[in-house]
Amino acid sequence: MVQNKSVVFLKHPSDYPVVGEHIGFQTKELNVELKDKDVLLRNLYFSLDPYMRGRMRDVKSYIPGFSIGEPLTGYGVAEVKESKNDAFPVGAIVSGFTGWEEYSVVPGASRLRVLPGARESPIPLSAHVGVLGMPGMTAYTSLKIIGKPKAGETIFVSAAAGAVGQLVGQMAKKLGLRVVGSAGSDDKVDYLINELKFDAAFNYKKNGTILENLKRAAPEGIDIYYENVGGETLEAALEVMNDHGRVVACGMISQYNTQTPYGVRNLFHIVAKRITFRGFVVTDFAEEYGADFVKDVGSWLVNKDIIYKEDVTEGIDASPEAFVGMLQGKNFGKAVVKIADL
Amino acid sequence: MVQNKSVVFLKHPSDYPVVGEHIGFQTKELNVELKDKDVLLRNLYFSLDPYMRGRMRDVKSYIPGFSIGEPLTGYGVAEVKESKNDAFPVGAIVSGFTGWEEYSVVPGASRLRVLPGARESPIPLSAHVGVLGMPGMTAYTSLKIIGKPKAGETIFVSAAAGAVGQLVGQMAKKLGLRVVGSAGSDDKVDYLINELKFDAAFNYKKNGTILENLKRAAPEGIDIYYENVGGETLEAALEVMNDHGRVVACGMISQYNTQTPYGVRNLFHIVAKRITFRGFVVTDFAEEYGADFVKDVGSWLVNKDIIYKEDVTEGIDASPEAFVGMLQGKNFGKAVVKIADL
Repeated sequence: MVQNKSVVFLKHPSDYPVVGEHIGFQTKELNVELKDKDVLLRNLYFSLDPYMRGRMRDVKSYIPGFSIGEPLTGYGVAEVKESKNDAFPVGAIVSGFTGWEEYSVVPGASRLRVLPGARESPIPLSAHVGVLGMPGMTAYTSLKIIGKPKAGETIFVSAAAGAVGQLVGQMAKKLGLRVVGSAGSDDKVDYLINELKFDAAFNYKKNGTILENLKRAAPEGIDIYYENVGGETLEAALEVMNDHGRVVACGMISQYNTQTPYGVRNLFHIVAKRITFRGFVVTDFAEEYGADFVKDVGSWLVNKDIIYKEDVTEGIDASPEAFVGMLQGKNFGKAVVKIADL
Repeated sequence: MVQNKSVVFLKHPSDYPVVGEHIGFQTKELNVELKDKDVLLRNLYFSLDPYMRGRMRDVKSYIPGFSIGEPLTGYGVAEVKESKNDAFPVGAIVSGFTGWEEYSVVPGASRLRVLPGARESPIPLSAHVGVLGMPGMTAYTSLKIIGKPKAGETIFVSAAAGAVGQLVGQMAKKLGLRVVGSAGSDDKVDYLINELKFDAAFNYKKNGTILENLKRAAPEGIDIYYENVGGETLEAALEVMNDHGRVVACGMISQYNTQTPYGVRNLFHIVAKRITFRGFVVTDFAEEYGADFVKDVGSWLVNKDIIYKEDVTEGIDASPEAFVGMLQGKNFGKAVVKIADL
């Protein structure tokens, strides 16, 4: 019999999850009984995303929490191994919602889509959980809809070398904005400046407070803050924001793994500077903007108008540690696990 | 010679302003030399508004700060006493930007408008700095534009017995919302429930934390938070807000008079619940919505579809203390000073 190794949810963490305590492995015999419309996937890539930490909380949220004792789930790329669904034939390459495991049964093949031509394409399969997947769609839609970028404005992007940030920065450059980024290592800052051509970038762990760094990098203030971090970085961004500024609230990763969240003390700027601070979930925009996204970003990628850095962990065994590392900012580029070769 | 008594700005306060230290009186002989287009006003009513505290800060803001040694300025109702401006004849009643003093010279009569028929109208003159003035316009436009109220939703209004809050609550009731308010005394809570017909209201100083009070008053959560207060009240509102909630950021009076602002720790809800949190200044909306406002609110007022409570201080001598009291929430209704009889 085939064995199926999964990463399962063990316990709600209050700080950073610990491998073995909050998430761990389970191996079971693969025992497939497909019903009509179901598919069995052989998973190839699995995406490690900050929002998954939110699913580990024991509170109601916009997305259901993970179930104790069950495999974790998320975005992935997979090959259809068995199928009772004509739209998803055996051998098809699909992306969508799957399990953090070697094989997954997806009832009704729900939330999957076939990637036609994926085997022959020059675009790597992992791109479908990155630049051409949820993070790409997030960057593309939210920058446009909430950020309302205008040429000549300044945007500040936190976690700027991350899955979403690196795309937001490059898209904003294409639109004629001045782009400032923050990241947690000198390597990442070099990448932002030299590879992604940001106008300014800083390592938020060095050279004074985040506010001091931001003031140096954006002496004329900022018009858009693309928020991935929260806490002290958000406070600094509000402090230097210009009138009518926009905060695109994509995530607040600094606040997910702590029982003592940072208290932001200068929200009065939202009134005084007439700021719009808006949260979203990428699926809010997918229907209206999905087609534009695939066309625009697909062609930018093929034409090398944008580049995209991934941080690929090889094999499921190392992947729980890679997940925790991603929450701690240790990844350099979009965090993804390669579970198997095609 | 005629004497002109003014309230002047003495020093930037860091906490609550102190009368005699930060604001005080000055009396000068009235020596009027009008240039072409100027008018001399005899001030009748002067409006005491929370935003004025922002003009006492030593920082750049959306509105210029007060000048040390000069009379404070704000919204008022006045009679034209002398005029070199044909559009503002002697005897006309005007509202607009004037001084916190007995007489004011307004160069070019700028930011004034004539109130035709004001002497004969059943509407009291003070209404033009309240329900028919800036607070009314604020409530009317921001509830509509930022709040996007829908029948059946729940709105929570803080400082609900104040100049803006009492109108927001009544307008929301007219639109079919469930209306919850907070205020700082039992008298005000009684007024909200019994006179303004709020569905629920609480005294935020009693019966547990603000969050506990709010959960009892809004067990199904809230869809709109009309923000006048900031700090702990804002944190509680975010905690109970439903998905796609809106925060109309009108003011944050709890944060204006302190050097130790409250740190709001749960801004992650803005991401997770897809909240839109937006600040504004009433003049942003005045052009587009001014005509609708005058028509709608004027007729509601005449038809007694809405009521409006004012807290009138008689005479300029008591007015600096009334201003500080307003910042401390001691006013019950819109704070206004009656400087002189018509």
